[in-house]
Amino acid sequence: MTAMERSTQAAADRSPNGLSLWGEGRRRVILERLQPEVDAGRYPIKRVPGEPVQVEVDAFADGHDVLTCLLRYRKEGSTTWQESPMTLVINDRWRGTFTPTEIGRYQYTVQAWVDHFKTWVHQLHRRVDANQEVSVDLLIGADLVADAAAHASGEAATRLYTYADALRAGDLTAAFAVSLADLMATYAPRRYATMYDRELVVVVDSPLARFSSWYEIFPRSASPEPGRHGTFRDVINRLPYIAELGFDILYLTPIHPIGQTFRKGKDNTPTAQPGEPGSPYAIGSAEGGHLDIHPELGTFEDFRELVRVAREQYGIEIALDNAFQCSPDHPYVREHPDWFRARPDGTIQYAENPPKKYQDIYPFDFESQDWQGLWYELKGYFDYWMAQGVRIFRVDNPHTKSFRFWEWCIGELKTKYPDAIFLSEAFTRPKVMYNLAKLGFTQSYTYFTWRTAKWELTQYMTELTQTEVKDYFRPNFWPNTHDILTPQFYPGHRGTFYARAALAATLAASWGLYGPAYELLEHMPVQGREEYRNNEKYEIRTWNLDDPRSIRGFIAQLNRIRKENVALQRNEGLRFHRVENNFTENDQIIAYSKHSPDLSNIVLVVISLDPVNIQSAWIELPLSDWGLNSPVQMHDLLSDQRYTWNDGFNYVELNPYAMPVHIFRLRRRVRDERGFEFYS
Amino acid sequence: MTAMERSTQAAADRSPNGLSLWGEGRRRVILERLQPEVDAGRYPIKRVPGEPVQVEVDAFADGHDVLTCLLRYRKEGSTTWQESPMTLVINDRWRGTFTPTEIGRYQYTVQAWVDHFKTWVHQLHRRVDANQEVSVDLLIGADLVADAAAHASGEAATRLYTYADALRAGDLTAAFAVSLADLMATYAPRRYATMYDRELVVVVDSPLARFSSWYEIFPRSASPEPGRHGTFRDVINRLPYIAELGFDILYLTPIHPIGQTFRKGKDNTPTAQPGEPGSPYAIGSAEGGHLDIHPELGTFEDFRELVRVAREQYGIEIALDNAFQCSPDHPYVREHPDWFRARPDGTIQYAENPPKKYQDIYPFDFESQDWQGLWYELKGYFDYWMAQGVRIFRVDNPHTKSFRFWEWCIGELKTKYPDAIFLSEAFTRPKVMYNLAKLGFTQSYTYFTWRTAKWELTQYMTELTQTEVKDYFRPNFWPNTHDILTPQFYPGHRGTFYARAALAATLAASWGLYGPAYELLEHMPVQGREEYRNNEKYEIRTWNLDDPRSIRGFIAQLNRIRKENVALQRNEGLRFHRVENNFTENDQIIAYSKHSPDLSNIVLVVISLDPVNIQSAWIELPLSDWGLNSPVQMHDLLSDQRYTWNDGFNYVELNPYAMPVHIFRLRRRVRDERGFEFYS
Repeated sequence: MTAMERSTQAAADRSPNGLSLWGEGRRRVILERLQPEVDAGRYPIKRVPGEPVQVEVDAFADGHDVLTCLLRYRKEGSTTWQESPMTLVINDRWRGTFTPTEIGRYQYTVQAWVDHFKTWVHQLHRRVDANQEVSVDLLIGADLVADAAAHASGEAATRLYTYADALRAGDLTAAFAVSLADLMATYAPRRYATMYDRELVVVVDSPLARFSSWYEIFPRSASPEPGRHGTFRDVINRLPYIAELGFDILYLTPIHPIGQTFRKGKDNTPTAQPGEPGSPYAIGSAEGGHLDIHPELGTFEDFRELVRVAREQYGIEIALDNAFQCSPDHPYVREHPDWFRARPDGTIQYAENPPKKYQDIYPFDFESQDWQGLWYELKGYFDYWMAQGVRIFRVDNPHTKSFRFWEWCIGELKTKYPDAIFLSEAFTRPKVMYNLAKLGFTQSYTYFTWRTAKWELTQYMTELTQTEVKDYFRPNFWPNTHDILTPQFYPGHRGTFYARAALAATLAASWGLYGPAYELLEHMPVQGREEYRNNEKYEIRTWNLDDPRSIRGFIAQLNRIRKENVALQRNEGLRFHRVENNFTENDQIIAYSKHSPDLSNIVLVVISLDPVNIQSAWIELPLSDWGLNSPVQMHDLLSDQRYTWNDGFNYVELNPYAMPVHIFRLRRRVRDERGFEFYS
Repeated sequence: MTAMERSTQAAADRSPNGLSLWGEGRRRVILERLQPEVDAGRYPIKRVPGEPVQVEVDAFADGHDVLTCLLRYRKEGSTTWQESPMTLVINDRWRGTFTPTEIGRYQYTVQAWVDHFKTWVHQLHRRVDANQEVSVDLLIGADLVADAAAHASGEAATRLYTYADALRAGDLTAAFAVSLADLMATYAPRRYATMYDRELVVVVDSPLARFSSWYEIFPRSASPEPGRHGTFRDVINRLPYIAELGFDILYLTPIHPIGQTFRKGKDNTPTAQPGEPGSPYAIGSAEGGHLDIHPELGTFEDFRELVRVAREQYGIEIALDNAFQCSPDHPYVREHPDWFRARPDGTIQYAENPPKKYQDIYPFDFESQDWQGLWYELKGYFDYWMAQGVRIFRVDNPHTKSFRFWEWCIGELKTKYPDAIFLSEAFTRPKVMYNLAKLGFTQSYTYFTWRTAKWELTQYMTELTQTEVKDYFRPNFWPNTHDILTPQFYPGHRGTFYARAALAATLAASWGLYGPAYELLEHMPVQGREEYRNNEKYEIRTWNLDDPRSIRGFIAQLNRIRKENVALQRNEGLRFHRVENNFTENDQIIAYSKHSPDLSNIVLVVISLDPVNIQSAWIELPLSDWGLNSPVQMHDLLSDQRYTWNDGFNYVELNPYAMPVHIFRLRRRVRDERGFEFYS
């Protein structure tokens, strides 16, 4: 076959649009396995301002040329990308970091290309080391530099041409000038660069999304006078108490009118007695629905005053409890019967989990013909209450409402209120809980309440902080809620209340309590159910906040310690420590540390999980891993006692009837200008 | 706020195209984490006809309704999907399987929806169990069935209406009829179904892609007469020998004209002596290039005859060695100087890895201005040789050519020749090797050659068979190649040749040998390099195939055992077994089993890695895991000896100077119609 015949054949084989559809074929770099990336970029990751995004990607090209790899990012809407260098870690894995500074949405992606100048320098070093003749190589370099000069202007162009001339004149030292490398990094054209397939999104939330302490109350129980229905004014009067406890979010159970039909009585009896207040989760009555206030709580003016005073005087945000369900008396039932599922007998389908029936609750039908009207109306709920000053919502059972609705609703709301926070109260299967977080929920309730053994606490925290869920699922740890009183509290051990609160407050950056039940050690369950007896859902309670048994001081200490130690304000940096007796792990004592990124703040928490016996053990203190020398001072921030510990194992003893918790801040030996040594 | 005011606000909040852009909001099922899926569907997975694709996906909806989840698949180009049921495994994970039957490309994806009929049946069971009144529920069911009837026709519609009437008449038994469930599964409309985001592709290759035995030779060394250049006719005469060895692919090193400029001499000396043949990898001379045949090998007619005889008489496919590089004498250098990189001194850039220079080789410049012409020409190489009957190519150093070129080239070729096979000879970093497999290479050389210890063989096989690479990377295990003679062979231990061949042939479904060097125990290296002395790359060798030291009989046994045992024809079903002496793992003996999907064929391989000492140990035989009872007969397919083993640990002893390999087929006790028992 002749050359002519061959090229004829090649031409014949060209499929009509084959290569023009293929784009630029000279892009030689492959970019893949970018992290963090949730479901191939289908969902964003989450951060708060100042929290870095560390990006990794596999980048490689054919052959042995040197690559340049850049992390690109921008605030959504900005037309220009900012760039941050990426460096090769190992095995074609590159890493770079950027830090969003503002609330909102950022995009990020990666760009890489074969860097002919860097390749040339790299190879020139090897040639010179091997004493090879390099005159032609210097000419090649001169061409690369002149090419960059043609893409520069002003002084930079002049300097690049000067370097090109030097190389052309055989000046080897010019090749290795750092300033030439800098100029080339800026001006050399990025020919045939590969962009990563996708631009990814990071949602940057309000700082409270990451580090927050929640306190739940039933506002109707806020009255100090037995028998009187609590009001928003009562809640205002309780703010100093809540501020003293150190919480920054006060969440109110639903504040809307309560239905009469099928109203539940005390302890969830099927029929309410006259005068019983009903469950605030059976929303809607002749007095209104989700956009109205239960009259006995007060007025819209009172509510706005509560939001204002809490925020301005106490630094406390008011969170509302969003429960998208209706009592049979809700105005929607009359105005929008098509938002509910009709039964063949003309009635409306109540909530049920057969054989259980919840006839006081009508769920919305997300397969309604008028699903769009329903979606707009439900989103309107949030707009409406945001207009009253609210920015934080605890969302009741989001997993029983359409997932796509939440994605749309939260997405739309965040464009207008980027600082809004939505806490998902979904206690359900793990993939559903994680998906709600992907869809947009800012924080999520967790399984913490049921994780009581050391092995399961360790395993669960490892899942939350070491796997990809860490980038989108922000756990919020609650020892109790108004719906959940777990069996470990039934005996009423004070030590259990200490231990569970301390675990929640130090394992997770966000935690919450249902109070005043918790600090007042409320612990009597309904027989056979993990639920409080005399539950505030069905009756109005009066709480004696000054009960001498209250652990309010301890709760306040926990929140103060959290505020003073940045190590506790994030979920990263968690490490579990060995707790040994005679080389055997002691499963009754859990020990873990958290540290700030710069290791200037290290907190070691040691908690006994045994409510009845004194426990002792030796705790691993890996000082050398933190770059510290023995000894260090272990300052117990609860008792204010100080101990001197050394690298290795150190002894602790915990009495559950006294205090089953140590929260140690590590203090290292420092020397001042006079030569005096202190622990700091 | 009145209802009117509220709906005005909701209307005002409607962003112009908000919900119309959002699509159908009533789709309630979320589908995510589908497997197998390579890089979010960017690349296909691979199978051969008859090899199942097991698909898993997370599927869940809001609430507690029951889902139906279907696997959909079709041959690419077909307009109709076939469907296969998926079943819930655990924790919202669903699984289904389909089996492509033809060579080509198939698509697959998943569809799921909230199944109101199944939900209704499920809830009805619970209501009935709780003795609840269900008359309204039967009406609800009747509506669902009538709705399906309206979507059916003929007898199915009639039957569905009959069921609807029965339910409406209060006939509870009708609700649970299996035939009703079947009809509903077929005819109930799939309202608001969710399709998985992507349609994924499986490339279905020729069966040889999965299970193949390769044999490499230098055709110029095929002459039985010392001093005479081998020809295609000589290769034809050697086919009976190769067939006796049991190989089904014969791969020839490059058959093209060899360059003169900078021709290499014996043992890679920089300058060839007159009469030395040069390296066949320095392709191109005045006699032609990649589309021509080195004249001393014969004619195109001879070559086509070789391809034909091999295929028709011996069932052997001829594979060509594709090396996209040119000697300085290649016609391309003159005809297409723009396909090479020019140096400022007017010369062409030769291959180099500074300070090493390979002046006999010009690499193509994939950043050429005429990259499109280059791509078409290179693809033309494959078209050209496929027209001569070749379907299999070993590709030399694909990682030094543009990745995007390979993706295009192999993709285009496979549309015309879907049975073509491309073996990637990339010995480089793991991510590059894996990426070439993703881009389209059918099989890949591996690190097997350098994995000699038990722990690393185990770790590597686990990576290849248990991680996602198993879906796109088909390993081909070679104990040697013409480029690689690893140190374990240097002492010339016959046992090492047995052990390494047996490892390759039984660990991987595809393996290959460079012969006759291997079966003739060639083992002398070039000093300081993992390379053969007197390498055929630089000289013509004459091999004495009848040397009494040859292990050709053993190689033939290995290939016969592979053909007779389907367990060895796939990489799935591999399991490593404990090998113990006094409770301690014996690291010198490796034991593993492979089994067919139905467990009818189970092979246990036991190999000593110790070339000089007799090794003995106790091998774990987990009969109960395979559903077998003790005792079984262990039939050594190499020695034809039979042993009786029991569940648990069984003793073996291996002498490297005799035979360091057992390949046992497990034979179980069976009873014939006369009541006589045998091992089968």
